Amino acid sequence: MTGKKTFAIGIDLGATTIKSGVVDKKGKIIDQLTVETRANKGPSTVIQHIVFSVRELFSKHKQASCCGIGIGAPGVVRIEDGSVHHPPNFSGWTEVALAKAIRNAFSVPVFIENDANCAALAEAKYGAGYEFKDFLFVVWGTGIGGGIILDRKIYRGPHGGAGEIGHLSIDYNGRECNCGSRGCIEAYIGQRYLSQRTKEILEGRRKDQEPSKIIELVDGNLEKIEPSIIAEAAELDDPVATEILEEAGDLLGSALASVMNILDLRVAVIGGGISAAPHFVFKSVEKSLRARVLKPHKNGIRIVRAKLGNSAGIIGAASLVF
Amino acid sequence: MTGKKTFAIGIDLGATTIKSGVVDKKGKIIDQLTVETRANKGPSTVIQHIVFSVRELFSKHKQASCCGIGIGAPGVVRIEDGSVHHPPNFSGWTEVALAKAIRNAFSVPVFIENDANCAALAEAKYGAGYEFKDFLFVVWGTGIGGGIILDRKIYRGPHGGAGEIGHLSIDYNGRECNCGSRGCIEAYIGQRYLSQRTKEILEGRRKDQEPSKIIELVDGNLEKIEPSIIAEAAELDDPVATEILEEAGDLLGSALASVMNILDLRVAVIGGGISAAPHFVFKSVEKSLRARVLKPHKNGIRIVRAKLGNSAGIIGAASLVF
Repeated sequence: MTGKKTFAIGIDLGATTIKSGVVDKKGKIIDQLTVETRANKGPSTVIQHIVFSVRELFSKHKQASCCGIGIGAPGVVRIEDGSVHHPPNFSGWTEVALAKAIRNAFSVPVFIENDANCAALAEAKYGAGYEFKDFLFVVWGTGIGGGIILDRKIYRGPHGGAGEIGHLSIDYNGRECNCGSRGCIEAYIGQRYLSQRTKEILEGRRKDQEPSKIIELVDGNLEKIEPSIIAEAAELDDPVATEILEEAGDLLGSALASVMNILDLRVAVIGGGISAAPHFVFKSVEKSLRARVLKPHKNGIRIVRAKLGNSAGIIGAASLVF
Repeated sequence: MTGKKTFAIGIDLGATTIKSGVVDKKGKIIDQLTVETRANKGPSTVIQHIVFSVRELFSKHKQASCCGIGIGAPGVVRIEDGSVHHPPNFSGWTEVALAKAIRNAFSVPVFIENDANCAALAEAKYGAGYEFKDFLFVVWGTGIGGGIILDRKIYRGPHGGAGEIGHLSIDYNGRECNCGSRGCIEAYIGQRYLSQRTKEILEGRRKDQEPSKIIELVDGNLEKIEPSIIAEAAELDDPVATEILEEAGDLLGSALASVMNILDLRVAVIGGGISAAPHFVFKSVEKSLRARVLKPHKNGIRIVRAKLGNSAGIIGAASLVF
């Protein structure tokens, strides 16, 4: 690498948008671009949109100064051949040699990794995980994902699929999960379920109770409820929103206790949509985790809010290059 | 190491007995000895009994030919200073520099590791895990312990406490566990609970039902029920014993699905007292695991019976040396 190469391109491939950015060696995004993914059009369209994004960035930032391109992709990513397998919500995409396709378009090195792992890496190198050598990164959003950071590196597992903490079952006889199992934590605190449960509670309230702030925030349309709305209502001390998020935090804490006991970890960094939630949610996770984890683990238990927000994907993807 | 050094001594430190053995480089025990631990007398007595055992073995096998001594100890073992912390059922034992104490007595290298990890290593190097690079070792006995083998090595975790799969909760609202949490798999399939549950089922049976073979095997004294008896009755096709073990296998499978999803593993080797159980128990674990684990993990799921039985502790401890 010569002294002239100063930045990397990070690409956060989502089912709705492709976010790409020019990232410097300190993990700072100096330029960025969002385009539609059109995942329903099949792999070649998606690849074209990625190539387009990179070309756009190279039109303003010289390719000669680029160390390489890093891609964070959903689904299982096989590092050996840079292929992406079964990303959810991508049509006609069983197994695609994505890294190879991007390498063919540009004469710079191309790296690829699972998207949750990229976000975990970003928090480890530049965010809330910087002070911890080992931690669990939790993506709390539509689903519940995870990345395991050991000795500042991703633990990928023998087949590249490690960290699926959303499918840790907290009740072997519990709610059905989309994955086919029962009681997965994702089925209790994922976006869809949280919104559904809030709706049910609001519909079941008596007329003489004070109206929830949530109803105001969605203009009376309960179909519009989503976790960011619940979080907003909780900030306004709405009792329904507070109860739901506290309960969700308690359940996540019980799942994390199992993970910590197995992996011998102490720290969880929580990102995803919920990382904008009020402080008491994080306290609720921590309290439940501390009450349930094995004694030798109790000291040093820490629940930390992720720092990089939506940028974690781009920054983490770029950090694959450096 | 000179060519003359041909064996290691492996010590399996239990709360009841200290099992020690002379083990060759192929993992074969060529001589062995069992003495009482007298764990209730405190650390110095236990150390004396270990030293006595090693002296006995050295009286028949020349110390000059010994590569070193390996110790498998219960509790949390800190590798850095060879100390053993809070082993259950050892009186007055908070933190003891066990490796140092043994080093002071003999002029050979001394190594130490957690006992479940030692058994896992033994199965990895010489037993049922030999054909697998990565697997989970499950100790199914009085409690439920575990050892995680990654790339043929122990995954110890940042603080040396990894692999506590007995304290993965399968029901956040479930049975109280001795550890203070709820729903730990150990509280459902550990020795004490299995025996208790069997007793309750037998006591609740109607007089006109065919008497269970278990009652015969314990001469009518239900206090004598233990997993080996249940396993024996199941071998004789006793329906109560079969039901209990099948149910236990199903629960263990659901816990293992969570572990496999997090660690990206496919294979579990099951040891401990239950490894003498009939084949259908292992089938029950496998069926439940396969039904619950994430799709990309389903291929290659294997539940394997441990091969080394009670010798795994000695052999694994000795293997720390080679």
